[in-house]
Amino acid sequence: MAEPVFRRLALIGLGLIGSSIARINLDGRPLAGEVIACARTPKTLARVVELGIADRVEADPARAVAGCDGVILCAPVGSFADLAAAIGPHLHPGAILSDVGSTKQSVIRDVGPHVPAGVHFIPGHPLAGTEYSGPDAGFAALFTGRWTLLTPPEGADPAAVERMAEFWRRCGAMVETMEPGHHDRVLAIVSHLPHLIAFTICGTADDLADESRSQVLKFAASGFRDFTRIAASDPVMWRDVFLNNREALLEMLARFMEDAQAMARAVRWADAAYIEDKVERGRKIRRSLIELKQA
Amino acid sequence: MAEPVFRRLALIGLGLIGSSIARINLDGRPLAGEVIACARTPKTLARVVELGIADRVEADPARAVAGCDGVILCAPVGSFADLAAAIGPHLHPGAILSDVGSTKQSVIRDVGPHVPAGVHFIPGHPLAGTEYSGPDAGFAALFTGRWTLLTPPEGADPAAVERMAEFWRRCGAMVETMEPGHHDRVLAIVSHLPHLIAFTICGTADDLADESRSQVLKFAASGFRDFTRIAASDPVMWRDVFLNNREALLEMLARFMEDAQAMARAVRWADAAYIEDKVERGRKIRRSLIELKQA
Repeated sequence: MAEPVFRRLALIGLGLIGSSIARINLDGRPLAGEVIACARTPKTLARVVELGIADRVEADPARAVAGCDGVILCAPVGSFADLAAAIGPHLHPGAILSDVGSTKQSVIRDVGPHVPAGVHFIPGHPLAGTEYSGPDAGFAALFTGRWTLLTPPEGADPAAVERMAEFWRRCGAMVETMEPGHHDRVLAIVSHLPHLIAFTICGTADDLADESRSQVLKFAASGFRDFTRIAASDPVMWRDVFLNNREALLEMLARFMEDAQAMARAVRWADAAYIEDKVERGRKIRRSLIELKQA
Repeated sequence: MAEPVFRRLALIGLGLIGSSIARINLDGRPLAGEVIACARTPKTLARVVELGIADRVEADPARAVAGCDGVILCAPVGSFADLAAAIGPHLHPGAILSDVGSTKQSVIRDVGPHVPAGVHFIPGHPLAGTEYSGPDAGFAALFTGRWTLLTPPEGADPAAVERMAEFWRRCGAMVETMEPGHHDRVLAIVSHLPHLIAFTICGTADDLADESRSQVLKFAASGFRDFTRIAASDPVMWRDVFLNNREALLEMLARFMEDAQAMARAVRWADAAYIEDKVERGRKIRRSLIELKQA
């Protein structure tokens, strides 16, 4: 059996992502010799103990990272500044500090200043998720065949980057490195904006007069159902993502709104050719996705 | 075995819906003693013959409806005015004329004037679909457990309404009658607007600069993938739906745009409570859907 990537790994946050990593380690793919689970609430800690997916649980992040050669932040990105301030002084020289947040410029902004010299800071983002959250939601196959993007700061140690890449490959992921700003723009359009739209349309439907609203729920056709699946995701996580990728998200939303207004105008003035062209483009993108085996 | 609902049934259009009805009739659930398939293109007619899902194919709608006691329009709603003008004079007294269009006020507007006295006009809309289209896309289970909404005009013969309800129950659907204007408003929010948004966001992504676009396709996370599934549906069908439910669609789109602008403002000004509230509402709607077993 291969050596574990880390001797002792602290997972800060045991939601969908953190608890999936913990399960992979039990699944015969050696990520860490010892896993320390740190969570904010006693309820989550108790559940992790019941599930038996960590070697030790720890309520205090500073104590959790003691003696660790690997630390991964798996909490909502809005909590990263405080977490980094708390654990920074306790990180061991030579350790790797990483994360799984959906926004990367904000993570570098919030965590970077708290990373002591000699600690390798290698931010990461596994593009995987479901609409479920919490320590019961994780499963060992979550990352299989999915991308993980690493956004190492300039001057990062190539050996540390490779160690995180190996970590994610053992999780079943394909790994690529990307510039943090570019990451945030790409994710704004492929993930953050679609989720913002899904949450919004659920609210729009919920605001309808009572009779229509019950009909909406009763007759939800395939279109709306797919939106609500997206919209069922974790509120705090998404709130933090939106607030921490503000510039790119607002730019993509503005582009989308212009395009939606143009579509509204085409509907109002019965511009059949315009509408058909837009619908046809959707099909083409879908076909491209299928060819890329992402569908 | 129960008597078929119709002695001879003409299906005008053999796409996803029409070819599913034809398959149900072969599946031991007696809808019609004889099924006449009518399609616009020789290619579709040839494919229907190859598939063996109809007793006879017919290119001319007027000839297709001859001698039929049931006629169902299964083509895009934009073609209904011409189709109704063509078949109107050839409909038999006592026959039922129905349809499966996603917009009901437009169907009553376009088809109604061509229905001769003595013919029962009972518009309908099965809330079922996939992202596939054409005669190969149909399957006998398409309507199982899904709603079909009937929107009979005032004064419609209750026996004819019940006959169409029995037709759809044999297809596996649950049946309800609804006022046409109310149908169009409910469908605007549960189906038409979500599709318009999905087509639009695919276009927004497609407009990005070349490098970003290829990244978008490569890293399409779950959010965007779900949108492209919706967006892969039939262009002509959706073009016609948008143009024929204009008023309700534009109203729902305007409401959505206001809500999206409010969300943009909350992101810009970091109104965390507002965002969290909206995301939480999405979850609640999702839970309601699950309780209603529509999920």
